[in-house]
Amino acid sequence: MIERLASPIASIVSSYDTYGLINHTSGNNLPSRESIQQILRDIQGLLFPGFGESELIDPENLHLKTAERVYRLAQALVAEIEKSLSFTCRTGTFSCDGSACREMAETITVEFFSALPEIRRLLSLDVEAAFQGDPAAKSIEEVIVAYPGLRAIATHRVAHFFWNRQVPLIPRIMSEIIHGETGIDIHPGATIGESFFIDHGTGVVIGETTVIGRNVKIYQGVTLGALSVDKSQGNTKRHPTIEDDVTIYAGATILGGETTIGEGCIIGGNVWLTESVPPHRVVYVKTGEHIIKPRKK
Amino acid sequence: MIERLASPIASIVSSYDTYGLINHTSGNNLPSRESIQQILRDIQGLLFPGFGESELIDPENLHLKTAERVYRLAQALVAEIEKSLSFTCRTGTFSCDGSACREMAETITVEFFSALPEIRRLLSLDVEAAFQGDPAAKSIEEVIVAYPGLRAIATHRVAHFFWNRQVPLIPRIMSEIIHGETGIDIHPGATIGESFFIDHGTGVVIGETTVIGRNVKIYQGVTLGALSVDKSQGNTKRHPTIEDDVTIYAGATILGGETTIGEGCIIGGNVWLTESVPPHRVVYVKTGEHIIKPRKK
Amino acid sequence: MIERLASPIASIVSSYDTYGLINHTSGNNLPSRESIQQILRDIQGLLFPGFGESELIDPENLHLKTAERVYRLAQALVAEIEKSLSFTCRTGTFSCDGSACREMAETITVEFFSALPEIRRLLSLDVEAAFQGDPAAKSIEEVIVAYPGLRAIATHRVAHFFWNRQVPLIPRIMSEIIHGETGIDIHPGATIGESFFIDHGTGVVIGETTVIGRNVKIYQGVTLGALSVDKSQGNTKRHPTIEDDVTIYAGATILGGETTIGEGCIIGGNVWLTESVPPHRVVYVKTGEHIIKPRKK
Amino acid sequence: MIERLASPIASIVSSYDTYGLINHTSGNNLPSRESIQQILRDIQGLLFPGFGESELIDPENLHLKTAERVYRLAQALVAEIEKSLSFTCRTGTFSCDGSACREMAETITVEFFSALPEIRRLLSLDVEAAFQGDPAAKSIEEVIVAYPGLRAIATHRVAHFFWNRQVPLIPRIMSEIIHGETGIDIHPGATIGESFFIDHGTGVVIGETTVIGRNVKIYQGVTLGALSVDKSQGNTKRHPTIEDDVTIYAGATILGGETTIGEGCIIGGNVWLTESVPPHRVVYVKTGEHIIKPRKK
Amino acid sequence: MIERLASPIASIVSSYDTYGLINHTSGNNLPSRESIQQILRDIQGLLFPGFGESELIDPENLHLKTAERVYRLAQALVAEIEKSLSFTCRTGTFSCDGSACREMAETITVEFFSALPEIRRLLSLDVEAAFQGDPAAKSIEEVIVAYPGLRAIATHRVAHFFWNRQVPLIPRIMSEIIHGETGIDIHPGATIGESFFIDHGTGVVIGETTVIGRNVKIYQGVTLGALSVDKSQGNTKRHPTIEDDVTIYAGATILGGETTIGEGCIIGGNVWLTESVPPHRVVYVKTGEHIIKPRKK
Amino acid sequence: MIERLASPIASIVSSYDTYGLINHTSGNNLPSRESIQQILRDIQGLLFPGFGESELIDPENLHLKTAERVYRLAQALVAEIEKSLSFTCRTGTFSCDGSACREMAETITVEFFSALPEIRRLLSLDVEAAFQGDPAAKSIEEVIVAYPGLRAIATHRVAHFFWNRQVPLIPRIMSEIIHGETGIDIHPGATIGESFFIDHGTGVVIGETTVIGRNVKIYQGVTLGALSVDKSQGNTKRHPTIEDDVTIYAGATILGGETTIGEGCIIGGNVWLTESVPPHRVVYVKTGEHIIKPRKK
Repeated sequence: MIERLASPIASIVSSYDTYGLINHTSGNNLPSRESIQQILRDIQGLLFPGFGESELIDPENLHLKTAERVYRLAQALVAEIEKSLSFTCRTGTFSCDGSACREMAETITVEFFSALPEIRRLLSLDVEAAFQGDPAAKSIEEVIVAYPGLRAIATHRVAHFFWNRQVPLIPRIMSEIIHGETGIDIHPGATIGESFFIDHGTGVVIGETTVIGRNVKIYQGVTLGALSVDKSQGNTKRHPTIEDDVTIYAGATILGGETTIGEGCIIGGNVWLTESVPPHRVVYVKTGEHIIKPRKK
Repeated sequence: MIERLASPIASIVSSYDTYGLINHTSGNNLPSRESIQQILRDIQGLLFPGFGESELIDPENLHLKTAERVYRLAQALVAEIEKSLSFTCRTGTFSCDGSACREMAETITVEFFSALPEIRRLLSLDVEAAFQGDPAAKSIEEVIVAYPGLRAIATHRVAHFFWNRQVPLIPRIMSEIIHGETGIDIHPGATIGESFFIDHGTGVVIGETTVIGRNVKIYQGVTLGALSVDKSQGNTKRHPTIEDDVTIYAGATILGGETTIGEGCIIGGNVWLTESVPPHRVVYVKTGEHIIKPRKK
Repeated sequence: MIERLASPIASIVSSYDTYGLINHTSGNNLPSRESIQQILRDIQGLLFPGFGESELIDPENLHLKTAERVYRLAQALVAEIEKSLSFTCRTGTFSCDGSACREMAETITVEFFSALPEIRRLLSLDVEAAFQGDPAAKSIEEVIVAYPGLRAIATHRVAHFFWNRQVPLIPRIMSEIIHGETGIDIHPGATIGESFFIDHGTGVVIGETTVIGRNVKIYQGVTLGALSVDKSQGNTKRHPTIEDDVTIYAGATILGGETTIGEGCIIGGNVWLTESVPPHRVVYVKTGEHIIKPRKK
Repeated sequence: MIERLASPIASIVSSYDTYGLINHTSGNNLPSRESIQQILRDIQGLLFPGFGESELIDPENLHLKTAERVYRLAQALVAEIEKSLSFTCRTGTFSCDGSACREMAETITVEFFSALPEIRRLLSLDVEAAFQGDPAAKSIEEVIVAYPGLRAIATHRVAHFFWNRQVPLIPRIMSEIIHGETGIDIHPGATIGESFFIDHGTGVVIGETTVIGRNVKIYQGVTLGALSVDKSQGNTKRHPTIEDDVTIYAGATILGGETTIGEGCIIGGNVWLTESVPPHRVVYVKTGEHIIKPRKK
Repeated sequence: MIERLASPIASIVSSYDTYGLINHTSGNNLPSRESIQQILRDIQGLLFPGFGESELIDPENLHLKTAERVYRLAQALVAEIEKSLSFTCRTGTFSCDGSACREMAETITVEFFSALPEIRRLLSLDVEAAFQGDPAAKSIEEVIVAYPGLRAIATHRVAHFFWNRQVPLIPRIMSEIIHGETGIDIHPGATIGESFFIDHGTGVVIGETTVIGRNVKIYQGVTLGALSVDKSQGNTKRHPTIEDDVTIYAGATILGGETTIGEGCIIGGNVWLTESVPPHRVVYVKTGEHIIKPRKK
Repeated sequence: MIERLASPIASIVSSYDTYGLINHTSGNNLPSRESIQQILRDIQGLLFPGFGESELIDPENLHLKTAERVYRLAQALVAEIEKSLSFTCRTGTFSCDGSACREMAETITVEFFSALPEIRRLLSLDVEAAFQGDPAAKSIEEVIVAYPGLRAIATHRVAHFFWNRQVPLIPRIMSEIIHGETGIDIHPGATIGESFFIDHGTGVVIGETTVIGRNVKIYQGVTLGALSVDKSQGNTKRHPTIEDDVTIYAGATILGGETTIGEGCIIGGNVWLTESVPPHRVVYVKTGEHIIKPRKK
């Protein structure tokens, strides 16, 4: 069999020349999905201390453990961010003076830790919103250990920080990791206000230029998407704006950069919207949309 | 960089006081997601012996292996259930005489193993239903190793047992683990009859007070949900009842605690129902709901 | 507690006789999900060299590493394929002269490596299609490290190879592994042309006998499914045909083996189709399908 | 480099024919060193419960944990012993009716667990002897967690059980594992009485046919060995007999199958003995064996 | 077989009552060997930064990595030391006001890190001594990565710190871990001066009350031991004193608490000493101690 | 406690400047002990195929597995050897044109694989010698799985290859790994002939310039060492020569570069030799070297 494999091996290696687009076999490393996954796990430990540990945490070792985590994370973040920045330096879509990548990685890392208390403030509001928003939620702890929507929004708030600092690749890898785990696909560019709650969540898509206000609640299968996908337009606002206190039920689709759902609206399940709705409206699918008849035997 | 991190660390630690809602830094441990995941894996080995093992199992070591698994699982279950019960003891939403948590954990664990043969009986009917229900299924073995719907219903039948014993947190953690893996979100409170089959499954949501009869088949994206989410109503029946021999096609949404889909109904894809349907009806979306016109060049 | 467990253990073991359908406790092993997962990871390394590694790859060790990977994969593939073939030999649904399983496993394995350059050619077109098709995509590298649709199509092209060689179980285990990770469910039997792009992807279902042309783009929640599921019909064409240059937006459902979406069509979001559409048409949901009214206070 | 490796690979593979003595590439498996290591670790947990665990053990879970350990160990032991017995069946140096290997493996395993209480009785005497025998020992617990001599004797008492049941290879693998960890080389054939203590231990060698009485204490570097090594003599008694209450100091060498150290003797450090010593004697190296003179500058 | 194991299990569990001396099944945990092993590995990283890492360390991440390591180690040390102190509190051989164990553990931990620079100073002298003392040593780096004597003395200097703080069990577990790895058994109580070098090292034993001066060099198999082992004498000085600039060759044995080897002495291989030697002497085994005669055919 | 650690951390970091000798915090990496350990494990699999695997190996997958192992090993060896060569390039004790390190690493690696059949030939003779030399050895397989002397000589023959190619550090790391596991310390520079057997082995030391002939057998505690250790002499022959067919019993010490033990000699236990012995002599310790007297009560 060894002999029969010799020729396929040679062909595979030669295909690395022929279809080189999908190789990454020279130049520096890219940030690694495994490292980003570990980083997200460590950040989650910083955000929700005491959940997910198997040992008791008391005030004293909380302090020590926090310091250790920050230092470990700092090393990992600096390394991965530096790889990301170097990647765009090389490919030229991002303006950074080559030698400055490391320094910029350190600055962004320090800023990230400085931003963590504010992220924690937002997340404690998100947790509260989930607990209030779901009659099936029995405790705050249940929300934290068993609601995928909360894990998705927590990851988004972290990824969005790095997106705002123009770190390439890493925010998208973060959003895809949590997309894979929860079925909730929030582009790291999306702007999301306080007290956001996603229930069930599978199939939710929130596009790059979406803007969401405060106290917004959305259900599984909701799409906040774009109408057209003309790449030449670049980064114009292609996704809708959702104002404060809006609820969007399962399966609703809201499309377009100029579509605004006004404050206090309720958007019913499966509704398909490509135009704005004024504040304080209820939008729902017309009844009688289906036919009922006896089943043939 | 060490110096620049000192202040963020202090702020993070101080945020553990300010936004304390999302810490779990005192009191006993909560049940751990990792342990529950391991428990589910071991239970799966008990339910479907010989699948997923890399060594041959013969009758003799099946017996030994079963005993070992039961004893290992028993320790893990008692430990996690005790943590769960203690958690509600502390927070006061569950009535258990503090010192009795351990004893109750043991009793529930023994009852769980006693219930396993009945769960296996139900699962063998579910497997049969999947094999009969999907023309693409080539063998019983394929159903067991490659149908996410089967893994979801198996996990549900286990989680439902603990839900019925009023074990907090654990059933929800179980349902979220399998939700993450399959995109199928069945609340552990849902009551599901014999010979249940979910095909494809991504996006399925089945709410806490849903009641499902025998020989029911549902497809991806089906929601059995609630109409209103007023937390103050408590645990009233908010989700529909599906009677025997009902088929619900992809993307259908059925809402409300008083909505009953009668025996033998077929609910078409994307149908949106908030009212009951009498037995033996076919419900489908009205044709001609869309417009076809030439594509502009 | 030991004593209280004795009787449940005996019942569980005896249930292995009573409900034997879901045991696999005699005969040879089945292919293991864990092994297939490892195989997919190794294949991904062969397809996209340099992504996902933590060390730099230069031309020289690329060659060595490729040879090592091929030899490791070859052993694993031969072992798992042999188990698969033996399984159907035993159950009799596949015609292979018992003693020939090993030899056939080797031949299929060698052919698979010979097919890898062509699979790489297809994937480089898929990557290009994704980059062109999504305005949010910032680089080719981002597509490879962060687009679940690409991972799904890559896995499909591999699984489809083994499906065509009539290897049982393995292709379906592969498609379910990636279904679990991405929410995209492509049956390994589906035929998919060049430059295929799935955006977001959660909830996509593509059935066994689907045929898809070139330059097709589909979004999350799209179903390409069957109308009827009468198992007795066997493997007739039950799923639609999608011709070249078709775009299908989120949530659209296209059903039936004789349903053909003609070249260059655009199928709008949430459209439900069970009949063919001629080429170069746009199909969309009729506007005014919903009601807007003021929200009650 | 790939090309330059082709010829060495071919030579290596062809050397598997030429020097076949040291291959094990056909026939059944041998017992695996890794499995035996895991078995020893589990046995140690049964012998000294509560040491080396990271969780508290209370009387209730001690019982459950013991049962689980016994069942896990039973499977592992039966599997490894069966491989051992089959090995000698095949090579013909051990008389076992081929098909009976499995049954014999089970019987020996059950007998081993039946023998564990007696082994525990012996070990509690050995622990006591170590604590009494070393003025540096501060507690019983220190002896158990930090005395290599105790780990060596515990492993020996286990290995000796299997030696007596004529299990091939396994007892020797056990003795070599602990030899590697402690530098103490006790052949599993050696017969050792109650209350045995080895201090420090590095370099101790105790041969196959050694017989040691009760309350014997030996120090590092002691050899109880053979005078001649004529393989043709077979398993005659080649190593000494040490009667009760003997102490042997560091570096002493006692050789020969007919050499008996009488009850109550003290053998001084570095003594070299090839003849018997009557009871209650002290043997020591003659003083004045070395020269002292000024050091040259 | 299940049935045949029931009775042995019951006997084993009942033996936990009968021979309770060697259980540790109630009360708090003991320090765990695995944790101490991990602690030693982390300390080694602090002592010899850049050795044993697989990534490059530059001045910047050295600082961050040091801080992280210190915080991680601090938590582990406090936890294990607290267990140790609690152990002696319970058994009463150590005078610590129960509630003060945690506080004392923290103080000792902080003091340990404060002592690390001094330990590093000593180790850099030990490394230099090894490099100078062995003509086979090709570089300083070789001494650090490949000399077991250096690993033993490094571990000893750490264990000795905790011994001086009267931490129970942990120093002995440390010394046994390195004894197992190197065959060098240095009791943590021994006092060892600057620039100490052990070559080869297997079989070296250095007792609890040994005192060693500066620039001492010893070879494999050297014992610095006690003459008598009367436990009732308690912790009197039982082991020798070795003054500055002494070399002791392989296999030499020096015994007794009042035995002093004077400054600058050279003790030859295999010499057996129980009395003091004045400074600047050479001691060696008398020549002609063996017989040479023709070999019999 | 965080505050109390700040100052120790600063001191530790500053000690990295003060005692820089034992840092390795700049420049390239050294070869890693963990990698070398893995390399040794893989080489052992190549040398003794089928031992230590848990799956059956048949002729077909032996070939595939061999190729995979060689390619994996080749990468690891090239990487570690390149680090080693670069290390001496930098420190200047080895003459290699900087840029040539990689190329030289590849050449040495290819030569190593070419040398493996000869190493296997030598090892099959060593195995045979062990089996013949120890009456306690029951089978060839026992020698391979349970004789530390064999593992030590196998590692030596590998390390010696790299020593001869002047690869720095790696041969010494290899010899120390096996020294730690077996207590047998063979310097990689030693020259050892065919059919070499070490029994028991703990405490054996064989120095860098030792030369050993064919059919030599040595026992535990034997030292083949140097008389003087004057570093300035450099790499002169400092260790003895042992001619063919010599046996050296336990604890014997033979010292000096001009000391030759003639063909066919037998050196008795504990003999101390610093001068040559002509061929065919027996050397043993004079009897009557110790005193026997009654023990005092």
